[in-house]
Amino acid sequence: MTSSTSPVTGIASAGASIFADALDAQAVPVTRVDWRPPMDGTESDLATVATDPLRQEANRRAAEAVLGVQAMVVDVAPASEILGLEKGQFLHAGPPLEWANASGPMRGALMGAAALEGMVDDPQDAEALFQSGANVSLEPCHHRNSVGPMAGVVSPSMWMWVLEDPADGRRAYCSLNEGLGKVLRYGAYSPEVLSKLRWMSEKLGPLLKEAVGNTAEPINATSILGQMLQMGDEAHNRNRAGTLMLMRDLAPAMVQSSADAADVAETFAFMGGNDHFFLNVAMPACKVAMDAARGIEGSSMVVAMARNGTEFGIQVAGTDDEWFTGPAQIADGLFLGDYGPEDANPDIGDSAITETIGIGGFSMATAPAIVRFVGGSVPDAFATTRRMGEITLAENNRWAIPVMEFMGAPTGIDVSKVCRTGILPQINTGMAGRVAGVGQVGAGLVNPPAEIFPAALAELARRTRARQN
Amino acid sequence: MTSSTSPVTGIASAGASIFADALDAQAVPVTRVDWRPPMDGTESDLATVATDPLRQEANRRAAEAVLGVQAMVVDVAPASEILGLEKGQFLHAGPPLEWANASGPMRGALMGAAALEGMVDDPQDAEALFQSGANVSLEPCHHRNSVGPMAGVVSPSMWMWVLEDPADGRRAYCSLNEGLGKVLRYGAYSPEVLSKLRWMSEKLGPLLKEAVGNTAEPINATSILGQMLQMGDEAHNRNRAGTLMLMRDLAPAMVQSSADAADVAETFAFMGGNDHFFLNVAMPACKVAMDAARGIEGSSMVVAMARNGTEFGIQVAGTDDEWFTGPAQIADGLFLGDYGPEDANPDIGDSAITETIGIGGFSMATAPAIVRFVGGSVPDAFATTRRMGEITLAENNRWAIPVMEFMGAPTGIDVSKVCRTGILPQINTGMAGRVAGVGQVGAGLVNPPAEIFPAALAELARRTRARQN
Repeated sequence: MTSSTSPVTGIASAGASIFADALDAQAVPVTRVDWRPPMDGTESDLATVATDPLRQEANRRAAEAVLGVQAMVVDVAPASEILGLEKGQFLHAGPPLEWANASGPMRGALMGAAALEGMVDDPQDAEALFQSGANVSLEPCHHRNSVGPMAGVVSPSMWMWVLEDPADGRRAYCSLNEGLGKVLRYGAYSPEVLSKLRWMSEKLGPLLKEAVGNTAEPINATSILGQMLQMGDEAHNRNRAGTLMLMRDLAPAMVQSSADAADVAETFAFMGGNDHFFLNVAMPACKVAMDAARGIEGSSMVVAMARNGTEFGIQVAGTDDEWFTGPAQIADGLFLGDYGPEDANPDIGDSAITETIGIGGFSMATAPAIVRFVGGSVPDAFATTRRMGEITLAENNRWAIPVMEFMGAPTGIDVSKVCRTGILPQINTGMAGRVAGVGQVGAGLVNPPAEIFPAALAELARRTRARQN
Repeated sequence: MTSSTSPVTGIASAGASIFADALDAQAVPVTRVDWRPPMDGTESDLATVATDPLRQEANRRAAEAVLGVQAMVVDVAPASEILGLEKGQFLHAGPPLEWANASGPMRGALMGAAALEGMVDDPQDAEALFQSGANVSLEPCHHRNSVGPMAGVVSPSMWMWVLEDPADGRRAYCSLNEGLGKVLRYGAYSPEVLSKLRWMSEKLGPLLKEAVGNTAEPINATSILGQMLQMGDEAHNRNRAGTLMLMRDLAPAMVQSSADAADVAETFAFMGGNDHFFLNVAMPACKVAMDAARGIEGSSMVVAMARNGTEFGIQVAGTDDEWFTGPAQIADGLFLGDYGPEDANPDIGDSAITETIGIGGFSMATAPAIVRFVGGSVPDAFATTRRMGEITLAENNRWAIPVMEFMGAPTGIDVSKVCRTGILPQINTGMAGRVAGVGQVGAGLVNPPAEIFPAALAELARRTRARQN
């Protein structure tokens, strides 16, 4: 996608900034199309990758593969069953991580999960367990075809959404959303956190499994995402319409399930009271679509962006499963209660898979009310979506943004375009407290560390040269 | 509200149209603030009303009364019970009407309702019944604190939503929404139309009544409307998010009702398959709020706009319950299947109560996807909402339009402002086929006949002079 072909609802302004300032004062979205130099030290790699004869076709194929996926909700099942996860095995968000480098919320979530699995009675006792490393292992969700919001910790007894691309049977998985407040994914592990997780495994998971198996029509998460973008959700920090559509689609089967009416009613109240419930369906829907582009030789498209609370990592279609990582940043945004920037942990979670495919922060223009949650202004939201068009390979016409005259979501971050323009992907995100056990402290806007894109570009260039020699 | 104080996301352009055209070409919403002469022959009445010492305070009170109402869903019950409607009594949309002047869809709906009530076996036989006028009477919904979409026909056995302003116990009523396709409100009366209406009276109504009586929290329709405006609904021709939120709020109580699980499941499927289901809650919520301003001496605010398929009528706060009517217009819009403008009936329905309070066509900017249903473009939708700000008395800050930087819905049409600017209220609407029994043929944009505003202004001026003499 280039700015010259995309429909815009704002004004492109180069040069005379008095005109641009006058428009700003009238609250018209303005994009200042500054010429920017490429990122430092990338000129040679940019030239190499630009002349790679595979690149154009590889990127076209990668975008087409992603845009072609219809992610269907096909099952809900325990991680032990569906991923073969065994006692002591824990998945986490982001690139690979060791306990020694884990941040507060990641440690808190792991400690809570160890207690949930009965490995310790008191979550505090799990610290020694993880420190010793005996009988425990940590692995990224992405290495198991999974994604997890915030700490993204998955342990064997947790139930997971199963999304499938029916074209080839590939699957992606994500745990069930716990709601807001004190929740494991933000690093909280108090008794009420664990008791809610137990209810989710005992009641919620089995009921959802039965309902998903008995809907009149299969649930198409890709189609729900398209409708969400017409209903003020950007599917990362607003999932209200998505949650409601999921309830609508499951309701008849839930009512006719074998569960007690009181449990069904409690489940409706739980889902209906948690506007983020659909996030954990949206994420694996994005994951199963992005995975369709993995391993396409010569493609410079990012297939995953993920953070573990310490490091931010990306994976790229043309560099197999290699991670390019740098320090996770602290988001700039709005804080709950008395919390402030000093209370915030660096960026954490696999939820940036939404931005990887062009929604979340990339489609903020379609969810202008999000600025009251993550900060910024409505014109900023428009400008962000247009700016993301400058670093992406395609528009997703199935995911149209009505207010931008039905422009498609800007999809498929191109490592080359990021390095050439210096424009970084824009992510909107929840913020976890930096101390284990605290929970959420705010929400805001954040970027990846810039250096991971030149690093990925260098590897693409190395592979290009290797092919040419 | 004046254009100088309202936040805008577009550009006000007076004079040099080259600049405006250039912005148009870039798809920036542009409002051309042309000076327009007052409507013909209104100068003297405008001057009289402008100098009415009651006017300013009366309009302030009227707007404050409307904006202060919280419309709660308090019951669902049959019209026979709640309105005392007896066999042979029929309510209809719009201003008063006689069978002789009734349009095709209005006749079709009345004929279907007569069959539903067992007055005839075949709806066709009802024609003679209504022609004779014996044992039947027609009365506007508005005369019974009610509103009805399209033909708006209500007969004794139909169940109705009951909305209440808890501050003073005033109520407003509306029948239950039948869904799309062949439905009574569009003038269809085939056996499947009647059998669905019977199911609604036998199963849907009683189940909703029980659920409304057993929700954990009372359902606040005013609050749901505020959320809808952040979710792409303008609450006239898009009620998708509203329908989903209503389902969410009712679900736990529905599951625990005394109804069979199969009936509850069927009800969920019916509500979930009908994005307009909430329209019939939105309309009485608007009605109960607008009625708060009825009878305020000196106020030039419109309290009802309604059409019966033949005439379009308005009522004004300062002129008691008098109707000012003119011929209903044919909407300009998009047609279903092979239908065209020649198949469309003139404008019909009480649903313009949504525009009367500032949503529907007045808030199209917040529902840009609506243009795919009613026609027009996204910039048109923005321009319409801004233009409606020129003829209204207030902004409803509780109903904010995020994409216009949280500008409040433009609320309370001022008869004086309409006459002074010549700007007519913008309504978006469904279109009924002009032949009885056909049903919906399209959806589009329509205005009231211009002459009803000078007529209302003349009566306001007459009353002003009478007070001054």
